[in-house]
Amino acid sequence: MTLPAVLDIATLAEGYRSGAFTPLQVIEAVIARLDTADDPAVWISRFSDATLRAAARELGTTPDPAKPLWGIPYAVKDNIDVAGLATTAACPAFAYDPIADAEVVARLTAAGAIVVGKTNLDQFATGLNGTRSPHGAPRSVFGEAFVSGGSSSGSAVAVASGLVAFALGTDTAGSGRVPAAFNNLVGVKPTKGIVPSTGLVPACRSLDCITVFAATADDATLVRRVMQGHDRRDPYSRPFAPRALPLTGFRFGVLGDGEREFFGDREVEALYDAAIARLTGLGGTAVEIDYAPFRDCAELLYGGPWVAERLAAIDDFYATRAGDMDPTVAAIVGGAKRFSAVDAFDGAYALEALRQKTDAEWAKVDVLLLPTAPTIYTVEAMRADPIRLNSNLGRYTNFVNLLDCAAIAVPAGFRADGLPAGVTLIGPAFSDDALAVLGDRLHRALGTGPGKDREATLPGAPLAPSAEGMIPIGVVGAHLSGMPLNVQLTSAGGVLMQATRTAPDYRMFVLPDTVPAKPGVIRDPGFAGPGLEIEVWGLPPAAAGAFVTAIPAPLGIGKVRLADGSEVSAFLCEAHAVVGAKEITALGSWRVHVRGG
Amino acid sequence: MTLPAVLDIATLAEGYRSGAFTPLQVIEAVIARLDTADDPAVWISRFSDATLRAAARELGTTPDPAKPLWGIPYAVKDNIDVAGLATTAACPAFAYDPIADAEVVARLTAAGAIVVGKTNLDQFATGLNGTRSPHGAPRSVFGEAFVSGGSSSGSAVAVASGLVAFALGTDTAGSGRVPAAFNNLVGVKPTKGIVPSTGLVPACRSLDCITVFAATADDATLVRRVMQGHDRRDPYSRPFAPRALPLTGFRFGVLGDGEREFFGDREVEALYDAAIARLTGLGGTAVEIDYAPFRDCAELLYGGPWVAERLAAIDDFYATRAGDMDPTVAAIVGGAKRFSAVDAFDGAYALEALRQKTDAEWAKVDVLLLPTAPTIYTVEAMRADPIRLNSNLGRYTNFVNLLDCAAIAVPAGFRADGLPAGVTLIGPAFSDDALAVLGDRLHRALGTGPGKDREATLPGAPLAPSAEGMIPIGVVGAHLSGMPLNVQLTSAGGVLMQATRTAPDYRMFVLPDTVPAKPGVIRDPGFAGPGLEIEVWGLPPAAAGAFVTAIPAPLGIGKVRLADGSEVSAFLCEAHAVVGAKEITALGSWRVHVRGG
Repeated sequence: MTLPAVLDIATLAEGYRSGAFTPLQVIEAVIARLDTADDPAVWISRFSDATLRAAARELGTTPDPAKPLWGIPYAVKDNIDVAGLATTAACPAFAYDPIADAEVVARLTAAGAIVVGKTNLDQFATGLNGTRSPHGAPRSVFGEAFVSGGSSSGSAVAVASGLVAFALGTDTAGSGRVPAAFNNLVGVKPTKGIVPSTGLVPACRSLDCITVFAATADDATLVRRVMQGHDRRDPYSRPFAPRALPLTGFRFGVLGDGEREFFGDREVEALYDAAIARLTGLGGTAVEIDYAPFRDCAELLYGGPWVAERLAAIDDFYATRAGDMDPTVAAIVGGAKRFSAVDAFDGAYALEALRQKTDAEWAKVDVLLLPTAPTIYTVEAMRADPIRLNSNLGRYTNFVNLLDCAAIAVPAGFRADGLPAGVTLIGPAFSDDALAVLGDRLHRALGTGPGKDREATLPGAPLAPSAEGMIPIGVVGAHLSGMPLNVQLTSAGGVLMQATRTAPDYRMFVLPDTVPAKPGVIRDPGFAGPGLEIEVWGLPPAAAGAFVTAIPAPLGIGKVRLADGSEVSAFLCEAHAVVGAKEITALGSWRVHVRGG
Repeated sequence: MTLPAVLDIATLAEGYRSGAFTPLQVIEAVIARLDTADDPAVWISRFSDATLRAAARELGTTPDPAKPLWGIPYAVKDNIDVAGLATTAACPAFAYDPIADAEVVARLTAAGAIVVGKTNLDQFATGLNGTRSPHGAPRSVFGEAFVSGGSSSGSAVAVASGLVAFALGTDTAGSGRVPAAFNNLVGVKPTKGIVPSTGLVPACRSLDCITVFAATADDATLVRRVMQGHDRRDPYSRPFAPRALPLTGFRFGVLGDGEREFFGDREVEALYDAAIARLTGLGGTAVEIDYAPFRDCAELLYGGPWVAERLAAIDDFYATRAGDMDPTVAAIVGGAKRFSAVDAFDGAYALEALRQKTDAEWAKVDVLLLPTAPTIYTVEAMRADPIRLNSNLGRYTNFVNLLDCAAIAVPAGFRADGLPAGVTLIGPAFSDDALAVLGDRLHRALGTGPGKDREATLPGAPLAPSAEGMIPIGVVGAHLSGMPLNVQLTSAGGVLMQATRTAPDYRMFVLPDTVPAKPGVIRDPGFAGPGLEIEVWGLPPAAAGAFVTAIPAPLGIGKVRLADGSEVSAFLCEAHAVVGAKEITALGSWRVHVRGG
């Protein structure tokens, strides 16, 4: 048995399926790696080796298909409750023993995942750099002088150094994205509220999101889907209702010249430009947006009254134990005292005014592609100038939760000195599924391995678009992939669900005088033909009705039986229109006809 | 020329169309009524008679079909800017001369309406009773000892006493609804943000809505639609995206026994029960909901940090001129000083937690039917106990804007002493159009006249459902009105747009073995039949796709030409399925066939 240097879910799951290894073997390997790991600041607490072995043994040796994360070891940021380990938020004086798992941990355990331990963070998740902890500063796996990014510092390093296959972070200002950039990982920042926060020590309750670090977008998305689902105990919980994005022919917003700030890091800027080129190569069109109103939002997060949420989260503790806190964090939280309720509402008004401006920019694009962080700093530099440099790191992340966006941070390559950079795709709320597909394609186009193993081949397979919540429509002619009207499906966020053939009793004719040329399909009960090529596309509900009603006579949508006996709504033709038309049923495919038979 | 005692838009517009009167004649009548009006507290300022006459003359005598409010006189609550009149918010020390009309006033003027003047209000729109003004307390048109309701006190009385055909109010806690109840009017409280607030003196900016008082739901809806439309200058502005509600077979939430609080007013309670019975008679099913979490929201509005919005709105003024304010209003606004930003966020968390609970109640119903106000008070009683009694009035209104609902207050009849009561239909955000239809039906079923003219016949015609934003689908068989599958359309919020016939070249057959029985329609080019009965229904976009894809073979949706030559997506049948089936084309209608030919 050989485990990859950087663990991932796809490889482990395949190993379990094939019998190449068992959960107990993987846990033994994890224990061995933990014993020899060279960054002492990653963990705040861990389950004992015996406990980990017992958890692995309990799963047995045969994968349970009902448990999508069967035998997958993971780490939890230490502001999320795990029963049996203290929750500290990296503040020992604040520590408590949770009576239950956080809702997400309970769901992951139910799915077969194994919690290894609790990871270090910027205290109370206040920071983007990873140095604000009494447990030391985790380091980027690419340079021990450099920050890991934060606040989910230990979680990112645990994955990037191969200790676990995924890790939970949290993200208010960028804490689930910046550490992904600094450790060559994918960081999924879900839409606010779709992953419940029950059992999380809040930073800013109105903004906090639980996030995932993983080797690939596929892995991180699988974990997100396991965690997802409405939980009425979380005031900000919302049911997931997927929002489609075009996956080809999309427009993506990029920084204009006046808003390109990399604090002198020309290499990270070049890596950003390379990412723009890659995304263009994947079918996108770059559109310069005015980033100024987004930046103004970003500045509200720490400069405005939202910092009072950090005080609201630990009000009683702060009142008596502020002296036991990290001095920088205590100063930030204490700064909230100057804000009145009037200030809080004035901040809300300012945000809404900015939202009007950012909405105008969103009208130009489907997604944004931004640097995850403009540069990286050493631990020494960060400690010398903790507020300003931290603020620099959040330049392109802080606005995302305030404006209710989803985001996925993906690797963007390396500077000449071997330090990594990342870019983030940002989409409207509920676009998580589509964003994951675009993020995965962008990541795979880069050609680097995950985490510290940059020379490896990226594990797993490309993430298939999700058709969850979509309405299936079968197409047989000009809407097929590669045909002239296919763009009507893709631009509406349509997703190819299945390419197959109809049952044998359908006949196809060439409709005269149609532009672009279109076939007419009719059912002829009892007829035994070859079956016809058909693609089933999923369309978002709001788009499906408009699509159907835009279809011109003599075509329409009826029910068509497929080769496997199932039925799908699909294109049919009025019979009168095929009288005298050329029949091409024998070709079995409009595509074959168009190619000249 | 005879104008009705209570003015309404439908009657005026019809009079203009027929030539029965001109804008100038109407304005002369309005001036005459103003001169003899008996409530001295309705107006804070008015345009001069000469100015009003000039505005009417400028419109001429021929209605402009592009101006839906051509020649309609209206009043504006004096917290909304009208260029040429001071804005005072009922606080003379606060008065300023606006340089421009509020956006809504500009839109109404562009639509041909004529502003008569500015109406009295509870100072800074802080109150639900109408007594908190240095200009005196307007009185219910049904009893001069009784409050008019507030804060939009003068606006409601101006309409109810026949001085104008509609009036603008504002509504944060219920100010656009309680005065409607106390003056036998319709009060439309739009979804937050769909009517821009640009040019409004805020009460609580995150909650304020500009509202309409009118004789009928039809009139108020027409005005709302003229005012509606995104305005980026208003931070809380949102584009309107109509949300459908079922208009028959709907479920409406009502108070359970434990939450029926009428402060001893058994007659208002009986009028509420009568409204429940009426709405049941209109095709609804009453469902008892748990009102407790709604009440808890209501209590947050004045008991929680939202009062800080009132201070934020006039912070500088309050700091120097609090002594010039109404003492009750000054005490309420000043109370905001005790709230910190932490309190503001704690309030937001409490609201979101309550939203989880109220959402669980919403899952049981389509709309709520609540008393508008639980009782009415005398001016004397209100002045003696101004906080507690005001709070009583808001028991069933305060939560509506906090929970982002739309509402329409409609008359509910009269107590034995002649004082009126009202009920309010409340729906989810963006359900305004559907809510208006239900409200209109409930109002017309009551059988009373508008405003002070309770014995009159309600003017205008029943409000037709709006098909704005809906997708048209033609139905020819079991989905026709009154047929067994019609409920599939109505329960999805479908709206009947047109009942007509197809072009002559369609033939109809009885499909064998269908349950319920269904016809199959095919086009036979050149065939000259009678045309077939067809109804075009508008379906909400999100429902249309699901509807189409649920249609079983051999039916489907193609394009059908109507008698007027236009085309619509409609039911067609695969031709093979009608071979040998009984043809009923000659009957011209599935309905006729079902009735036995």
